[in-house]
Amino acid sequence: MRTYLDCIPCFFQQALQAARLAGLSDEDQREILIKFGTRLADFSLESTPPEIARYLYASIMKRAGHDPFREIKEKSNRYALGLYPDLKKRVRNASLPLRAAVQMAIAGNVIDYGIPRQFDLKKEVETALSSEFGIFEFDAFKSAIEMSGTILYLCDNAGEIVFDRLLIEELKADYPVEITAAVRGEPVLNDAVIEDAKQSGLDRVCRVISNGANAPGTLLEDCSDEFLRIYRDADLVISKGQGNFESLWGERKRIFFLFKIKCEVVARNVEGRVGDTVLLSSPSLEFQL
Amino acid sequence: MRTYLDCIPCFFQQALQAARLAGLSDEDQREILIKFGTRLADFSLESTPPEIARYLYASIMKRAGHDPFREIKEKSNRYALGLYPDLKKRVRNASLPLRAAVQMAIAGNVIDYGIPRQFDLKKEVETALSSEFGIFEFDAFKSAIEMSGTILYLCDNAGEIVFDRLLIEELKADYPVEITAAVRGEPVLNDAVIEDAKQSGLDRVCRVISNGANAPGTLLEDCSDEFLRIYRDADLVISKGQGNFESLWGERKRIFFLFKIKCEVVARNVEGRVGDTVLLSSPSLEFQL
Repeated sequence: MRTYLDCIPCFFQQALQAARLAGLSDEDQREILIKFGTRLADFSLESTPPEIARYLYASIMKRAGHDPFREIKEKSNRYALGLYPDLKKRVRNASLPLRAAVQMAIAGNVIDYGIPRQFDLKKEVETALSSEFGIFEFDAFKSAIEMSGTILYLCDNAGEIVFDRLLIEELKADYPVEITAAVRGEPVLNDAVIEDAKQSGLDRVCRVISNGANAPGTLLEDCSDEFLRIYRDADLVISKGQGNFESLWGERKRIFFLFKIKCEVVARNVEGRVGDTVLLSSPSLEFQL
Repeated sequence: MRTYLDCIPCFFQQALQAARLAGLSDEDQREILIKFGTRLADFSLESTPPEIARYLYASIMKRAGHDPFREIKEKSNRYALGLYPDLKKRVRNASLPLRAAVQMAIAGNVIDYGIPRQFDLKKEVETALSSEFGIFEFDAFKSAIEMSGTILYLCDNAGEIVFDRLLIEELKADYPVEITAAVRGEPVLNDAVIEDAKQSGLDRVCRVISNGANAPGTLLEDCSDEFLRIYRDADLVISKGQGNFESLWGERKRIFFLFKIKCEVVARNVEGRVGDTVLLSSPSLEFQL
C-alpha cells in the first residue's frame, strides 16, 4: 500500500508516542521529530508506510540504546498466556473451532503499541466471538488452507503472538500443513521477535524464523534470504496486523490478511471502517489459484 | 501558552486539512508539509502555537493566491444570520439574558475550520442553553463587566461573529460600556476579517478594528499600533476562541477567555476536557483588580 499525505501527521504522532513509551527525554523526542521533518522530502509517497516509519523507529531504538519495549513485551506475553487456557477451551468447544481461532487471532491484534489494556483485551475476545466481522472472507480462507501444503505465518506483536499460537495449533490439528512462523529480525516497538516466540510457546508448536529486518511490517527487500526463500515457496501466507498489511497489500502472492483496522487510510483502502476486524485475501488471489 | 511536542503532529494535521479546504493540489499540500518539516528546528517550544501555525497558514494562503476561505466564511455568516432572530428572542426571554448570551457566544465557537455543519451548530445552541458548562466563571465575568468602562472584544471565526454580535448587543444594552471589536488583519483560515464584521452586522453595533496581523490568534508583537493602544487602554478584554486563548493565556491583562476546548493540550492547561465550553479569567486577574 502506498503512503498517503494523511500518513505524515500520523508518523509524527506515532513517533512521539513511541519515543515516550521508550522513555526518551523531551529533548530527544523533539530531536526525533525535527530529524524526521528534515527528511520528509526524501520519502516517496509510492513507498509503503512501514518503509518510511522504519527510519523513525530505528532512530528511536538507537537513542534508547537497548530494547526499551522488552518489559512491555514480556508483560503482554505473560498476560496473554494467562488467558490462553480459557481461550483454548473456548476454541475447542466452538461449533466451528477454526473460525473461532481466526476470530481470536484477530482479536489479539488489539494489542498494539505497548502495555495492553487488560480490560480491553478481555472485552475484545468477547466481542470477537459474538459480533459480526467487518470483512470476513472465511470460506475463501478455509479453501485456501485446504489447498495448501506449506504456510508462512507472519506474526505481528508480542502478546498477540499467543493468539497466533492458538490459531496455528488449530490449523495444525485440522489440516496436514507445514507451518513456519516469522517474527521481526530486530526489536522495533512491541513487535514480536524470537524471544517472544519462545515466551509464548510458539516455538514448540511450529518452526519459527526471524525475517531478518527491522521494520514494523514486512519489507521484502529488507528481509533475509532464508525468509524470502520460505516466502516464495509457501503456498499461502497468513499476515497478521496492519503493518504487514501495509507492506504486502498488492503483492502478487496468495496472502490472507488478518488485522484490526487502525486508521482511516487503511479503512478507505479496504472499504471498511476504523475498528473493523478484517480477514481479507490479497486482490490477486483468484488469479493465483 | 507555550507549544508542546504534541502540537507538532497536530500542526501537520491542521496544515493538511487547511490546504485541502483551500483547494491546493496534492503536490502543493505535500510541499507545504515538507517545508514546514524542514523548519521545525527553527521553532522554539516557548513560542505560542499560533506563532508557529502562522507560518503554515501564511504559506497556504500564499499558494492559494487569494482568500480560499472567502466563500466558506460568507456561507457561515449567512447561516448564522438565519439563526439570529430566533437566538436574539431566546436571549431576551431568558431569565438571565447576559448569561444566555455568553452561552450562545461560546456555542458559536463550534464554527471552526470551514463549512459549518449546520445540524451540529443548531444542536450546539440547544446544548449551550440547557447543559452545564465545563468551566464557567460567570459571576466573576459579570463583576468584571460592571467595573469596566471600556472593553476590547477579540473575535475569532466568521459565522461565530454573529454570535459575538449577540453578546455585544446584550452587553451594550445592560451596561454603560464602550466596546471595540477586533478582527484579524489578513485572511487566515475561516477567521473573521473586516468583511465578516460587515456581513454579520457587527459594525453597526460597535466600533470594529483590524488587529493588523495575519495569525490565527492574537500575537501582540505582530499587531498594529492602533490595536495595541486599544488593548492597553481597555479595562477588560473578552477573548473568543482557542487561538486567542493560546496567544494570550499568561498575559498580565484582565482577560476573559470564551471558547470550546478543541485539543488535549489546552484541556490539560485549563484542567478541562476536550469539548468543554469555557468562560475563564486570566490567572492574574485578581492581582490586576
